[in-house]
Amino acid sequence: MKLKTWPLRAATPALALLAFTLTGPAQAEEGMWMPQQLPQISKSLKQAGLKIDPAKLSQLTEFPMGAVISLAGCTASFVSPQGLVVTNHHCAYGSIQFNSTPERDLLKKGFLAADYKDELPAAPGSRVLVTVDVRDVSAQVMDSATSALQGKARSDAIEAKEKALVAECEKDAGHRCRVARFYGSLVFQLIKQMEIRDVRLVHAPAQGVGLFGGDADNWMWPRHTGDYSFYRAYVGPDGKPADFSPDNKPYQPKHHLKLASSPLKDGDFVMVTGYPGGTDRHRLPTEVAFNFDWEAPELVKAFGKQLDLIKQETAGRRDAEIKLANTVAGIGNYYKNLQGQLQSWKGSDILARKQADFAALKAWVNGDAGRRAQYGAGLADVERLLDERQAITRRELLLNFASTTLLTGARTLYQQAQENLKPDAERKPGFQQRDQQRRRQAVEAMERRYDEQVDKRVAAYFFAQYLAQPSAQLNPVLLQALGLRQGMSEADVRARLDAIYAGSKMADKTERMAWLSRTVDEFKASKDSLIAAAVALYDDDRAREARDKELGGQIQRAYAETMKALIAFKASQGQAVYPDANGTLRVSYGKVAGRSQGTDGTSWTPFTTLRGIVAKHKGEGEFDAPAEQLAAIKARQFDKYGVKELDSVPVNFLATLDTTGGNSGSPVLNQNAELVGLLFDGTLDAVISDWDFNPKTTRSICLDARYMLWQMKVVDKAERLLKEMKAL
Amino acid sequence: MKLKTWPLRAATPALALLAFTLTGPAQAEEGMWMPQQLPQISKSLKQAGLKIDPAKLSQLTEFPMGAVISLAGCTASFVSPQGLVVTNHHCAYGSIQFNSTPERDLLKKGFLAADYKDELPAAPGSRVLVTVDVRDVSAQVMDSATSALQGKARSDAIEAKEKALVAECEKDAGHRCRVARFYGSLVFQLIKQMEIRDVRLVHAPAQGVGLFGGDADNWMWPRHTGDYSFYRAYVGPDGKPADFSPDNKPYQPKHHLKLASSPLKDGDFVMVTGYPGGTDRHRLPTEVAFNFDWEAPELVKAFGKQLDLIKQETAGRRDAEIKLANTVAGIGNYYKNLQGQLQSWKGSDILARKQADFAALKAWVNGDAGRRAQYGAGLADVERLLDERQAITRRELLLNFASTTLLTGARTLYQQAQENLKPDAERKPGFQQRDQQRRRQAVEAMERRYDEQVDKRVAAYFFAQYLAQPSAQLNPVLLQALGLRQGMSEADVRARLDAIYAGSKMADKTERMAWLSRTVDEFKASKDSLIAAAVALYDDDRAREARDKELGGQIQRAYAETMKALIAFKASQGQAVYPDANGTLRVSYGKVAGRSQGTDGTSWTPFTTLRGIVAKHKGEGEFDAPAEQLAAIKARQFDKYGVKELDSVPVNFLATLDTTGGNSGSPVLNQNAELVGLLFDGTLDAVISDWDFNPKTTRSICLDARYMLWQMKVVDKAERLLKEMKAL
Repeated sequence: MKLKTWPLRAATPALALLAFTLTGPAQAEEGMWMPQQLPQISKSLKQAGLKIDPAKLSQLTEFPMGAVISLAGCTASFVSPQGLVVTNHHCAYGSIQFNSTPERDLLKKGFLAADYKDELPAAPGSRVLVTVDVRDVSAQVMDSATSALQGKARSDAIEAKEKALVAECEKDAGHRCRVARFYGSLVFQLIKQMEIRDVRLVHAPAQGVGLFGGDADNWMWPRHTGDYSFYRAYVGPDGKPADFSPDNKPYQPKHHLKLASSPLKDGDFVMVTGYPGGTDRHRLPTEVAFNFDWEAPELVKAFGKQLDLIKQETAGRRDAEIKLANTVAGIGNYYKNLQGQLQSWKGSDILARKQADFAALKAWVNGDAGRRAQYGAGLADVERLLDERQAITRRELLLNFASTTLLTGARTLYQQAQENLKPDAERKPGFQQRDQQRRRQAVEAMERRYDEQVDKRVAAYFFAQYLAQPSAQLNPVLLQALGLRQGMSEADVRARLDAIYAGSKMADKTERMAWLSRTVDEFKASKDSLIAAAVALYDDDRAREARDKELGGQIQRAYAETMKALIAFKASQGQAVYPDANGTLRVSYGKVAGRSQGTDGTSWTPFTTLRGIVAKHKGEGEFDAPAEQLAAIKARQFDKYGVKELDSVPVNFLATLDTTGGNSGSPVLNQNAELVGLLFDGTLDAVISDWDFNPKTTRSICLDARYMLWQMKVVDKAERLLKEMKAL
Repeated sequence: MKLKTWPLRAATPALALLAFTLTGPAQAEEGMWMPQQLPQISKSLKQAGLKIDPAKLSQLTEFPMGAVISLAGCTASFVSPQGLVVTNHHCAYGSIQFNSTPERDLLKKGFLAADYKDELPAAPGSRVLVTVDVRDVSAQVMDSATSALQGKARSDAIEAKEKALVAECEKDAGHRCRVARFYGSLVFQLIKQMEIRDVRLVHAPAQGVGLFGGDADNWMWPRHTGDYSFYRAYVGPDGKPADFSPDNKPYQPKHHLKLASSPLKDGDFVMVTGYPGGTDRHRLPTEVAFNFDWEAPELVKAFGKQLDLIKQETAGRRDAEIKLANTVAGIGNYYKNLQGQLQSWKGSDILARKQADFAALKAWVNGDAGRRAQYGAGLADVERLLDERQAITRRELLLNFASTTLLTGARTLYQQAQENLKPDAERKPGFQQRDQQRRRQAVEAMERRYDEQVDKRVAAYFFAQYLAQPSAQLNPVLLQALGLRQGMSEADVRARLDAIYAGSKMADKTERMAWLSRTVDEFKASKDSLIAAAVALYDDDRAREARDKELGGQIQRAYAETMKALIAFKASQGQAVYPDANGTLRVSYGKVAGRSQGTDGTSWTPFTTLRGIVAKHKGEGEFDAPAEQLAAIKARQFDKYGVKELDSVPVNFLATLDTTGGNSGSPVLNQNAELVGLLFDGTLDAVISDWDFNPKTTRSICLDARYMLWQMKVVDKAERLLKEMKAL
């Protein structure tokens, strides 16, 4: 499945949001376009087959964009006037799990609310985000004063401007705002989203449908996963976002998607609207080399070890296994993805092409005195600055795996106490008043994902790895605070961790929650060993933060300038440049298409069918289709969803759509912007498309809406919802 | 790989040569046509794309048919004026193995004779058979006298006529003749072949090319096997067949195939000429049901057990492993084939279609008094008679697995002594003067395939299975002769076998050979326990033979009549009926084509390429491509064999050609009868085509001649042969 979240991107400086464009001429099917860019490429869209006016796609509050919503990490869409929301099964997984018990196993058996009153609250923190406004604020963020600043001062100024814009925007109650950065922090947009907080689970198929194929089929084709589920958005009686209440009413969206009125075929135009999380298409050669030659292999090694240790430590302890299940699934998914990327990297010519493209850009800039004056400084500095950041990553990557859950928690709590000393507007992003509800939820929820035995084992292993480095590369403050020494064995580290944990009550939820409201002085006076460690580490943590901001400010200046050069260079060739994905609303377009470059001697057909479910069915584990479904297939009850040429109902399909993690659950629309499917995955041998788009191999895997409707009608008898979607 | 030999077909009565046609309208690409039938279907051939005159294909001594030869079990063709022969690597395997030693491992490293004088003698018994004449002898075999006979007398009369025709034909020295039966023994043809006995190995690629993929890829697509090798036919200085001698000269065939002058593409017309061994397309419903519901499953069970026992008993004994290697490969190949057939049978509608077709035939016959008089009797009897034969098979199938190599040998030797009492012309086929050279070779060669430990273990296991049946179903003569009892355990049987073997010298080659010339009286006087058992079993063996001949005579009458009805029925619909394969020369035609019905969500492309070799290469075991080959691929040295659309050299291709075991090594010809490849396999999910041809799924797997030539030129530097074939 597509990566739902990408925590590690944020955790490693080299994977931060800065981006840079060095693609060749944009391929017909390459590009995650900002809605406002679509009028620029309207000719291509029409040539590809789009029937509606491309300009309509740039109006976010109009049809169809107004029907597309974010679930924060996944995409979804309204499919009825009563706020019915369709997304992927794997996007609603947490909510299905949250409502499951061994006695009422919704995960295994699926769930279908018979009426509104039976709809179940989604997992805590679930929300539906409807983008209501996007505004370019580049001139405000990067005004003449900010532009004159350097290093940390520049970083701080940008952050302050962003906070002020967000605060102003969020004065409109029920809304959530953010400033998103595009093109390597060259462009800034203020995005305003209505935040619906009462979200309820309406329907999910059985796991044998929604997760059919499990890990074995993840990132794979041929695919037969019924990856869909339904939520409903609820608002207060006044129609405004509200916390859960029995008095709430279904939200009535201004727009919702309609089901396709004509059957989808091979070669048909399709587009996908959604919230892709992050891509690296515009990375500089030095970043590409660093990622594939060092960072990704290191991460694969570390993830593999982490998964291994968790498996060992949870073996035979079902409780711990359940607590770590989400973590394991998330790491496992990313681990498989990274391995796929490295496999494609082996023997590829990506780096050579990136180097040639960058050399061409430099030559263009240096070929003209005016251009040299405008962009030359940035181009001259940017690679050196990135190398500096890579050196830091090399030293500190292992620490991302070494810090224990409780120690990280203690450090965050103390930082919050420190930030609380400032006026709200001056607090660091993430520590302001607007962040407190989520902070509280996170500190509380730690309970559900924390297992001491696993925590200590993983931390001890990675600390020992870290401590094996030469003394000069180690952080003396960290060693001092935790009582660690260079060259310590894993057993010795473990003994230290045992001693530290024994001296702390952080594992206790009540105790942990209490620290949310304690003062800096109370922290300083505490004898709790983990709190004491957090206090001891604080100054050093801030110093490293300042160091990163200093470097970040320099990189922003050089990178944005380089990016500006690139846009000008491409414009001189008549080409538009789409920005790398950054979790903001985008549109990709392409067509339904199989792939000729599969395993040598085979190719991929664009559609899979019900036959493949029967062929894969094992009656257990990851391939366990429900008996009622198998019976309906055997009886050839294809209903109106059967396709003659396929002699079956289409299940999943391939399309030349440019997508990435975060696009999961995105509606796939046909030439009339009608719903034909849900995007849910890519293929392992092309996940390197995040860095290097190859139109020959890159395909998105989509759920065919006909399979969803067939399963709902013929097998699961979900008439209420089908009527609501006007599918009956 | 295609089944090279099919000993079990002959061993089980239900799989004997009788055949019956009940196909629907012949599919464009269904049919292994007798050359003389081709003028009948010349319109179809031309429509399909054949450019040469179809009538030419029915002239066996003209081009191109004169260039196609039999290796007895495989097919081959002349490809130069100096008698150079190309066939499959797996067809020449025995000869490569025969010439290999650990010090000079031709199997592993391949072989390339630098000059004529370096060409190596093929394995003993190897021969090249050139069909020189085919004559319909139905009227002679089935004259009015024979037609009036019933039962055993009828069988004996047919056999006598056949022997006389063969004897007359073989008066022409250097030729081998046989009478082949077509359409359920309705039609008889006398086939005359020149038998070239001096055959030499010229070239074989390394095992990592010729057997690339081994068992894992056997019957599979995608495929990347370089399944080719070269022999040369030698004759005496007078140009006539002769035994091996340094004075022999390369045979100069009247015709040889030329390499294609235009590149083969998807959709191109292709045809294959060769010697398919046997098919069952025209079986009656009762035979189909018996085969798939009882016999094939029993054989799969027995083969599985046999392979398992051989593996156990040869473990750690390399010598025994080598002795049994051929046996294991042969059984394993057939075992996989049968499993594939049973897999396709599961849930298929074959039986229902066969029943409907047979009912239609019956209705046609019964709908007219004249037809009823002509065919009614046969149609009325045939199913009952076949059921009788099936009952015998049910009782005796296990005995095919129980008899030990030495006991079978002793019985044959004694039967030979008995036959020697008669004038040669009256001896049973297989025991005449013309069979003596092969008999001697077989008795001598037993040495190379016999291992006492394996022999006893397998026999003991299957005897115990046989003896577990109720007494009434057991043969009392067999039990008496070997000292066996109903219900005996495997250990007890083994003790009996040990005692019998201890009392015999049959394991000794000299002793065994001596029995070839001993008299019946000497056999009767012998104290050798196995010879004594053979003598004790003789009368019963002959009685069962007589029983089979009695039933066989009845079946022949009824079956041939039913077949005649079918041919008339089809002719009334304007359709030609091709006879089931029976080891005689046939022509199939079709086109290069992938397949859409593969695994759901994938399809098969018509060509594989060098890329697939690199992808499959593991550097060991069955996927171990030679380093020089991999280097040439990496360097993209495609020479003139590269195909732009494939961006590589084509390796294997799929074609809609109707073939079966025995077709291995057949030349694949294009529309101008030029050589484009060698047929070598089918696909496991369509091997049921032997019984039921499905044009959607049935594909033959062919070696692309361009891959062979590329490997010979770029990697193996076989310039001498390439020049000889005019490929340089």
